[in-house]
Order: sequence, then structure tokens, then C-alpha cells
Amino acid sequence: MSPTITAFERSPDRGKGLARDMRVRWALEEVGQPYDVRLLSFSEMKEAAHRALHPFGQIPTYEEGDLALFESGAIVFHIAERRAGLLPDDANARARAISWMFAALSTVEPPIVDREIARLVERDTTWSEQRLPLVEDRIRARLGELSSRLGDADWLEREFSAGDLLMVSVLLRLGGSGLLDECPNLSAYVARGEGRPAYRRAFDAQLAVFTGKPPAGQ
Amino acid sequence: MSPTITAFERSPDRGKGLARDMRVRWALEEVGQPYDVRLLSFSEMKEAAHRALHPFGQIPTYEEGDLALFESGAIVFHIAERRAGLLPDDANARARAISWMFAALSTVEPPIVDREIARLVERDTTWSEQRLPLVEDRIRARLGELSSRLGDADWLEREFSAGDLLMVSVLLRLGGSGLLDECPNLSAYVARGEGRPAYRRAFDAQLAVFTGKPPAGQ
Repeated sequence: MSPTITAFERSPDRGKGLARDMRVRWALEEVGQPYDVRLLSFSEMKEAAHRALHPFGQIPTYEEGDLALFESGAIVFHIAERRAGLLPDDANARARAISWMFAALSTVEPPIVDREIARLVERDTTWSEQRLPLVEDRIRARLGELSSRLGDADWLEREFSAGDLLMVSVLLRLGGSGLLDECPNLSAYVARGEGRPAYRRAFDAQLAVFTGKPPAGQ
Repeated sequence: MSPTITAFERSPDRGKGLARDMRVRWALEEVGQPYDVRLLSFSEMKEAAHRALHPFGQIPTYEEGDLALFESGAIVFHIAERRAGLLPDDANARARAISWMFAALSTVEPPIVDREIARLVERDTTWSEQRLPLVEDRIRARLGELSSRLGDADWLEREFSAGDLLMVSVLLRLGGSGLLDECPNLSAYVARGEGRPAYRRAFDAQLAVFTGKPPAGQ
């Protein structure tokens, strides 16, 4: 039986692939696991039925038989543990890939989300414009450190892993900010992620929800 | 051979147990794994030798033979995978505990860190005081959702897990804010975590670094 994930009925990013179901779709495509999608309106996400699956009333969730999971990082990890393609076999390399998963979500993403809060949630405050450069400097510091570590490698460890999948997903939220352009090796890293066939399939599938048209070629 | 972790030579919290090495010490104590600690000054943390272990120049790191890890979430998970006591045996219960690990670090902790940024990093800005209530409302929303889910249970799932260890660690950062007091079941949950013998041993060990005196009873 295929697992079922949840996603926005109408994604606030209008199908740009920045909602967190994209990370799970991408992981499922990388390992070749078919899946079903249940779409939720904003009000349905906050109802008791959905909160039983996701205590914070968000997407995505993942249901498979008796198992219900939330948190995109945990879902990607669950997928990566069950099927080959997202975590190395070698125990040490696997543990390092997991370090990158947590680094993407706990160290790199928070200042990037903070930028969205500064620009969108706090847009109408008196401080929004003045505060933005401070937030962007905090992002720059992280990007500089990540860029130094990546160097001229293709991926964060020897082979593509769930750590790269989450890191690329997080960096994609900077699209249009110009911040990634300051680190050409990170721009190339993100483009490399976007160029993977599994990424494209996942992207097309989430876009099709927004446009209401089936993915190209299907 | 015991693993070696890194910690602050002088913790900015003056031994209150809020630095991220505490999470790793607590996990090691829960599973009964002895460990060594290497202390780092702020300048040493930013040097190339340490950045080879931790790309973002932070603590803690974890070294064991050939393996070097960073990110407290990943280190706690590594410890939990190797020894009994932090993850249930049942596959579904284990996956749910991992969801809570990610929820603690990706969903609950970021607004709490944002409060510290508002109060400390941005203290001297013109907007600091005005912005703080907005940040605290975002924390309140998360705490309310977490409180609803916890209800009158002792732990987030049937038994104490690495998910609780990280969630309690994250909530402890709210000490003194009054925000936890608004959710009595969460205050009791945090106190339950602090009451665990393994927590006490870890707390005393990190405090001893700051005071320069060995932990009581040793």
C-alpha cells in the first residue's frame, strides 16, 4: 500500500515548490516510492482531525498503515531508512549525512525563515525595513560557512544524501534574495539538486496541484 | 574507548545548563555511556581545527574513533541508536519519537531562539521592546499546541524518549520568561525532565566546568 502525504490545497507559494510537502515528495521520488496525496484547506489544517496527525496543524504528514508521522525532517528520514538512495550504507557516512539533515533544519533554515517573517509577517511594522539587513547578515554568515565547507565538491559528503535534499530545499527559500548569488558554489549546488530527475518529478507534481493541470508528459 | 564531546570553556549562560552540550551530556547519562569533554574558548571555536569538526564553528561536537559528528540533534540521535534507553524498540513508536526530535528543534525552538535574538542580539535597536510581544505570541501559539497534545500524559509518547529529551531542553530556554507558567502541564513536563537522575548528573557536570568545582558527591 502506498503511503499518503498531505499538502496544501492552494499553496501560498503558488506552486514554486517551497512548501514542505516538496521535501517529502522529492525523497519519495528519489527512492522510487509511489505515494498518494490528500489536499487540505487552511481551515482543515487547523481542525481536530488533522491535529490528531499533526499537533501543530501543518503539512506535510505521512500515513502508512498504522503509522502516522509529522515533521518533514522526520518523514524524509523515515523514507531514507526504509529504502536505498538517500543514506549511505557505511555507518559513519550515514551518521554524517544525518548531521547535515539536522544542520539544514536547525542551523541554516531558522535565519532564512526569520527573513520571511521580517519581509512578510512583520511587513507593516515600523522596523521591518531597518531590521532586514541584520537578518540577512545572519544568513550570510551561515552561507559563508556552508560555502567554505562545500568547496568544489558536488555534495556535502561523498554522495548525494537526505542531508543534501534538505539543505538544497532550505537554500531554495532564498530564491530572488540575491544572497545565494554571493556564494557561486552554493548556487551551483542548489542548481545541481534542482537538476535531479527526482526533484523535477516532485516539482511538477506539486505544481500540478496549483495549476490544476496534470504534470507535463503524463 | 569513550567518546569525546566539546563544550564551552566559559559558557555564556554561566552554567545554567542551556548550552547545547547539555543535551548531549544528558543523552549520554541516560544510556550510561561515559564520555570525555574537551573545552573550547570562543576563539578556538572559530579556528580551522575546530571548523574541520563543526563547519559552523559551534559546540557540541562528538568524536569516537574515526567518526566526528556535529549538531546536537544528530549526536543525540546517534547515541540513541547505539544504546538502549532513548528510542522505543517498536518501529512505529520509534519513528514517532524521531518526529518529536525534529519538532523540538525545527518547530518549537526557532521562535524561542528568536526571543533571545530580540532580547539580547537586538537589545539596543529601536524596535526591540515593541517587537518582543509579537515574538512571544508566536511562542505562545506553539506552546498551546504542544500543551494540547501532551494533555495529562507524562511524556509525548508512551515512554520517555530522545524526543522528550530535546523538547524539555528547548523549553528550558524559556526559564524566567513566564511563558511556560501559562501552560501548567508543560511546566510539570519540564520539571519531570529535570527530575531525572541522568539530567541531574549532566547538569552538575556542566555546572562544574563553570564553577571549577567537581560535581557534588564526587
